[in-house]
Amino acid sequence: MRPDVVLLVLDLAGTFAFALNGALTAMRAARIDIVGVLTLASITAIGGGILRDVILGAVPPATFSDWRYLAVAATGGLLAFFLGRLLASAAPVIELLDAAGLSLFAVTGALKALEHGLGPGQAIILGAVTAVGGGTLRDVLLRRVPDVLHSGLYAVPALLGAAVLVLAHELDVRGGPVAVGAAALCFAIRLLALRYRLNAPSPRRPGHDNTPDVPGPG
Amino acid sequence: MRPDVVLLVLDLAGTFAFALNGALTAMRAARIDIVGVLTLASITAIGGGILRDVILGAVPPATFSDWRYLAVAATGGLLAFFLGRLLASAAPVIELLDAAGLSLFAVTGALKALEHGLGPGQAIILGAVTAVGGGTLRDVLLRRVPDVLHSGLYAVPALLGAAVLVLAHELDVRGGPVAVGAAALCFAIRLLALRYRLNAPSPRRPGHDNTPDVPGPG
Amino acid sequence: MRPDVVLLVLDLAGTFAFALNGALTAMRAARIDIVGVLTLASITAIGGGILRDVILGAVPPATFSDWRYLAVAATGGLLAFFLGRLLASAAPVIELLDAAGLSLFAVTGALKALEHGLGPGQAIILGAVTAVGGGTLRDVLLRRVPDVLHSGLYAVPALLGAAVLVLAHELDVRGGPVAVGAAALCFAIRLLALRYRLNAPSPRRPGHDNTPDVPGPG
Repeated sequence: MRPDVVLLVLDLAGTFAFALNGALTAMRAARIDIVGVLTLASITAIGGGILRDVILGAVPPATFSDWRYLAVAATGGLLAFFLGRLLASAAPVIELLDAAGLSLFAVTGALKALEHGLGPGQAIILGAVTAVGGGTLRDVLLRRVPDVLHSGLYAVPALLGAAVLVLAHELDVRGGPVAVGAAALCFAIRLLALRYRLNAPSPRRPGHDNTPDVPGPG
Repeated sequence: MRPDVVLLVLDLAGTFAFALNGALTAMRAARIDIVGVLTLASITAIGGGILRDVILGAVPPATFSDWRYLAVAATGGLLAFFLGRLLASAAPVIELLDAAGLSLFAVTGALKALEHGLGPGQAIILGAVTAVGGGTLRDVLLRRVPDVLHSGLYAVPALLGAAVLVLAHELDVRGGPVAVGAAALCFAIRLLALRYRLNAPSPRRPGHDNTPDVPGPG
Repeated sequence: MRPDVVLLVLDLAGTFAFALNGALTAMRAARIDIVGVLTLASITAIGGGILRDVILGAVPPATFSDWRYLAVAATGGLLAFFLGRLLASAAPVIELLDAAGLSLFAVTGALKALEHGLGPGQAIILGAVTAVGGGTLRDVLLRRVPDVLHSGLYAVPALLGAAVLVLAHELDVRGGPVAVGAAALCFAIRLLALRYRLNAPSPRRPGHDNTPDVPGPG
């Protein structure tokens, strides 16, 4: 496949994974109807890309100029809505989908940043922003603490996946296999972190603390 | 009136309604002083338009290049602050104002999107984003679950109002009466949904659920 | 120093103060690891500037095109992470750092807005948005009510500092001393407000209220 086709396919796959994830997460919260489910599916799926494109100045964002993104997001949301009873009881499914979206968007976000002329460091960071952006918006709207703040290795695999892609790009190694490989690396690290509850080092808690605790995910 | 004047009048009316709504909502929360009230009034009133303009690339947003928006938002906020005791005890007033802002912004947002060359589908969605954007920011800042996620028919009337306007536009039926009619349709549906507690279908809850419930508005 | 150097130095100093503040605030919340601390430090430090630049259309934002911002933000976050036990027990330190970032960004934000051709009123408001933006994102992500809504004089000193700078600019009095003076004024007012618990007038609470209270900071 041509590189831009690979990029599009990976981007749409990430959109689909995040749409399913956003819809299933919404359905675990009470009093959310089909419109709320579709809304949250769409925001999770395209929120990261909108952040990326607004920061790059590539407006209107791709999701608004290219209908395929919204169609994929809506399909994912509807599918989750109707198959939700089958899928939602399995929390690992939600985490797998989130890891998939994270990995795919880290790579496509970094690649789009490079295409728009950003330097390598900036491209890595923007890749990670693309990857964690949609899920962070999802969590803020559902009043959860965003994964990126408390969930062990969440931003780190995204940064690594983006870094591998950018490094390869700098060495003139480009194309589909590199992108897929970088996404697979991010995905594998994220799954290992979930499986073995890997965490980055935590600060020692100061003794006196009058700020309310931030509860974890479960 | 000329079309652009109609658009401006509707846009300012929506700004005023949302400013009153944002201020009254803020005043029902404790420990919010006049600055907080004005801040929340302004964010509710112009947040949707800023989102719309940033996505369109029409920056600086109209609210920053055209002082009338900020003046109207501040006036609404101050008015609510000083008349709050009269208005705030009546929850329906807050809902009416919110429905008015929703309807007006759905129409003006879609119209501005068309003017900037977006396709019909994208214009409908951006109209709805404009309509629900300010209220969503308001709810996030006040730590409420956004109406758009749980409140029955909230996004749906905005999408319908925007769709009517865009359809008429495609059929070359333009001008003030169409815009006012589309906004009135959205307003009527929203009020019916509030009056009869209409909701879109909800997902069946999965059996096991360890995510905290999202409480409704009361 | 040349004016643009003064602006850069003030901007980086504000970035550093907000990075320390964001990291220390994050560390007072439970279950936040080093990645979460660095993430929140960075968002607090550069969030306001990103909002400013996106609204101005100056994209990619300075923090993405100029590495010094991210380096300063990361340094502040790491420093706070390792010295946190020494610093974090002293709540006044966090408030001082927040006041410093607020003051510096109010001035640099207004100045950048003037350079991009915004009118004086708009520049004052955008200065205040730059000043309160990063802290507001910090509070939303940590699920706290943003300071700008409940914390007495928080937006007011930022507006005053920006106004002094814009007024001097209109009178053709420019350069480093004016910027430093305007920031110092904002800083002094903010500290007085904290010390004497100054607040702007609050609305009388309406009698019946079924919205949950918004708790204060402690």
